[in-house]
Amino acid sequence: MRKLDPAKHAIKRQQILEAALGCFAEKGFHQTRTADICKAAKMSPGNLFHYFSSKEAIIEEAIEQDRSAGSALLDRLQVADDLSSGLVELVESLLDASADRMYLTLSFEVAAESLRNPRMAEVVVREDAKAKAFIADLLRQGVKRGQVDPTLDVDSTTHWLMAICDGLLSRRALDPLFEIERERPMLRELVTRFLRPAVQG
Amino acid sequence: MRKLDPAKHAIKRQQILEAALGCFAEKGFHQTRTADICKAAKMSPGNLFHYFSSKEAIIEEAIEQDRSAGSALLDRLQVADDLSSGLVELVESLLDASADRMYLTLSFEVAAESLRNPRMAEVVVREDAKAKAFIADLLRQGVKRGQVDPTLDVDSTTHWLMAICDGLLSRRALDPLFEIERERPMLRELVTRFLRPAVQG
Repeated sequence: MRKLDPAKHAIKRQQILEAALGCFAEKGFHQTRTADICKAAKMSPGNLFHYFSSKEAIIEEAIEQDRSAGSALLDRLQVADDLSSGLVELVESLLDASADRMYLTLSFEVAAESLRNPRMAEVVVREDAKAKAFIADLLRQGVKRGQVDPTLDVDSTTHWLMAICDGLLSRRALDPLFEIERERPMLRELVTRFLRPAVQG
Repeated sequence: MRKLDPAKHAIKRQQILEAALGCFAEKGFHQTRTADICKAAKMSPGNLFHYFSSKEAIIEEAIEQDRSAGSALLDRLQVADDLSSGLVELVESLLDASADRMYLTLSFEVAAESLRNPRMAEVVVREDAKAKAFIADLLRQGVKRGQVDPTLDVDSTTHWLMAICDGLLSRRALDPLFEIERERPMLRELVTRFLRPAVQG
């Protein structure tokens, strides 16, 4: 048996991931066969499962990498002075991500697939839970510092901030008149008005 | 040639529509073949196009019917005393619709398909434009009556109200912890805080 070179393995894994995401965006997650991914990644069929156990595992890895790519922002938010503005910045980062057509298409592929595929739903719920925990933590800290309205229920506020993130991806996908730069000021306004403490009378 | 009975034609059309929506929800819009719809509607293949010109036309009709079904609400909103509360009620009606799993699944099918199918995108844009015109009109009237903050840009505010509607469908689909009744108060809070005029200092 050949000895496995971890660096080569990691490079090949990344090549497969990128080839697979291209296939999912083009043909749809459901319609993409393992053979399509192998062909796009220029590897012999049957080899794929040395690298990923399933198509769902590829999506899981992609979501993880997307989060890592944003980790500079997450690090900055954890030490931000104003956590309400920090949360605005977090939601805005989705507005920027939505400029990438492939990101947008894959988001919808994952959502549509998770409605009919319990394994995909499991991946989505697991990754969602991490994002929600992060947002809820920022909200709690914001409340402690007087930057977020203490009367807001943290879990429910988290859900609605997630809903705004989902909704902006959806608008970008569906509405050609929804332009990022024109919508940015109102997104800030929406999130700021939602979170800020009532002015003392 | 047989004489066409308009009442029978309408009944058959409705049967086909319902059969088709069932197929779209189960198999996906893209994967549903005309033959699947004919089989589900118990009609001979090839007859479908006497009733609908395309699968997209079926979706267009379904969206139209969905809007007609909500027309009692729309009529009430147009004569509502408080248009800010009226808009909250409008967004809330989506929260109620999201309880229907089939409605939810079809919403995602339409969104995912419109990213790869220009004919579907055209249907979505056309139907979206009607919803947006209605919301923008309520916002303008609300501003006139002092019930909606006059500093808000109407078009952009409309886009973000649509985003909240899209986002709540997405949360319902993806997050098993997103429960309608638990989330309702915060949805009201979110939309109210967004729209209400600033308190005079």
